[in-house]
Amino acid sequence: MVIPVHTNAKDYEIIFKRGILPEVSSYLPGNIRVMIVTDDGVPDFWLESLTVQYPKAPVHVIPNGEASKNFDTYKGILEDMLEHHLSRRDYLIALGGGVVGDLTGFCAATYMRGISWINIPTTTLSQIDSSIGGKTGIDFGGVKNSVGAFWQPEKVFIDPEVLSTLPLRHYRNGMAEALKAGMIRDPELFELFENGDMMDNEEEIIRRALMVKKEVVEKDEREAGLRKILNFGHTAGHAYESYYGFDKYLHGECVAMGMMKMTTDPVTKARLRKVLEKMNLPVSCDADPLKIAEFITHDKKADHDQITVVTVSKIGDCKLETWTTDEVVRRCRV
Amino acid sequence: MVIPVHTNAKDYEIIFKRGILPEVSSYLPGNIRVMIVTDDGVPDFWLESLTVQYPKAPVHVIPNGEASKNFDTYKGILEDMLEHHLSRRDYLIALGGGVVGDLTGFCAATYMRGISWINIPTTTLSQIDSSIGGKTGIDFGGVKNSVGAFWQPEKVFIDPEVLSTLPLRHYRNGMAEALKAGMIRDPELFELFENGDMMDNEEEIIRRALMVKKEVVEKDEREAGLRKILNFGHTAGHAYESYYGFDKYLHGECVAMGMMKMTTDPVTKARLRKVLEKMNLPVSCDADPLKIAEFITHDKKADHDQITVVTVSKIGDCKLETWTTDEVVRRCRV
Repeated sequence: MVIPVHTNAKDYEIIFKRGILPEVSSYLPGNIRVMIVTDDGVPDFWLESLTVQYPKAPVHVIPNGEASKNFDTYKGILEDMLEHHLSRRDYLIALGGGVVGDLTGFCAATYMRGISWINIPTTTLSQIDSSIGGKTGIDFGGVKNSVGAFWQPEKVFIDPEVLSTLPLRHYRNGMAEALKAGMIRDPELFELFENGDMMDNEEEIIRRALMVKKEVVEKDEREAGLRKILNFGHTAGHAYESYYGFDKYLHGECVAMGMMKMTTDPVTKARLRKVLEKMNLPVSCDADPLKIAEFITHDKKADHDQITVVTVSKIGDCKLETWTTDEVVRRCRV
Repeated sequence: MVIPVHTNAKDYEIIFKRGILPEVSSYLPGNIRVMIVTDDGVPDFWLESLTVQYPKAPVHVIPNGEASKNFDTYKGILEDMLEHHLSRRDYLIALGGGVVGDLTGFCAATYMRGISWINIPTTTLSQIDSSIGGKTGIDFGGVKNSVGAFWQPEKVFIDPEVLSTLPLRHYRNGMAEALKAGMIRDPELFELFENGDMMDNEEEIIRRALMVKKEVVEKDEREAGLRKILNFGHTAGHAYESYYGFDKYLHGECVAMGMMKMTTDPVTKARLRKVLEKMNLPVSCDADPLKIAEFITHDKKADHDQITVVTVSKIGDCKLETWTTDEVVRRCRV
């Protein structure tokens, strides 16, 4: 299935098909040179699927994990691009999770003031979340994604087959974002988790989550308004990530706990809790509420002394609320 | 005079008026916070003109010169922005030459995935050249502007008054770009240099050069085609800069020599030589032609084994030519 994505900056396609990885090159122009960026957590098997199509392509391998999203790794990729004389006409291909996609996209955004890139996400999190939207970047000064750009890929290839080698905890981690999509915009998607088996419904879950994200991003590419609803669970989630230093919990796990914090109706909250428990995702943690409040008010989306957060009362129905610092503290204490 | 600039990314205005610097804030929204980036070569007098309008604004001062266009300076500004908790709604203001503009613009392009910035160029070169076009970036891996972005400012303020403190060599350096604009697109602009006094015609020269650049950039924001003509004199010029290591010659001086190399008609070339000599700009140098050829073929605009160059035969009339590596060597030997 081909999902067209329209943005102000450009139109591109998501090719969503099981077993598409070995056929990627047939969708791309024949006269380009490519450089592949991947991480050492991606099984060789999948990388070989790609390199066999581009036997001459340089491959840049970064260490797996959020810690790679820094200036040194970014500069290392840029250096490699210069050494291989990549021109403005050439392409970067990202094969990996969100970290690989964010870094590769940012390199593409800024090398020679912008070249083309292809995203091949290999985790549930990156397939569901970062494959649409064009957000690229690195972490800097202790702030997640504080340096980056909006830079849309030329094409995205989503192959659910590659999820077969993903560790279960990472599999669930990404599914938290699909659940979020259901919570803010698609009750039927939520019910797929509530009433069925996550893995049995894998393709339908990914498809529906992509459609939610596509609709929202198309309406508001640069996060001026509507797109903010995608941050449901993320404002508190990012605070948990900062608090625990990206170690104890994964991103989706923090989002899971963040969604609990931002679900206002008790009945809805009980349903969410039940689903999260079924998915083996955490619903709360032992973080100091005051420290969490402090991280929230220092979020990059905070605007001077207030911050916009997303709350959900009924499933599929979210709203934006502006909280002052005091309100953040009060809510975090609950 | 207000010059509107239309690009795909955004529309913005150039406010071109002698003595505008002390009035900048009256043109900007009242509810923003700003951070000022400048360099230690800008006289205190001009900086104070600005800080008196924004007494609370943090001021980040970088060392004057091309050597500042690097990752360390870039990261230093970003760090300062984070420390002052600049939000996505806030503005950077660049007060300085092209280096300050390029760096500030790139920080604005990538901080929190893009914030607003104001450009106040203080040299002839930056007023004439980098004030339109949205090119931002830094030098990396020995390649000029190898990392950067297209990121248009919210507004540009051009105040010819600030040129009064510019050293004469730098004044002429920037005027080389205005002469280039005449060479490729505006014979009357060329004749202002040929028949009159550069300083007497200062405002008219800057205005005409801006109009040439505006027309070209509006038609081709991302340098897919027409915009390449602005590189007249630059392909060889950048090679001279790389050869001499940014020390012996200034940018405009290298462009002057580069224009001589790319002017094909002998009569036109003689007229150009006469004007350059009148302006005290160099027409040739002692660089090894083979090394220059090598730098040219490694230019970031080179595409595998060929490069597009701009040549002028008749004044105001340029064309794009594609040269192979061999052709570059042959031409450099002449």
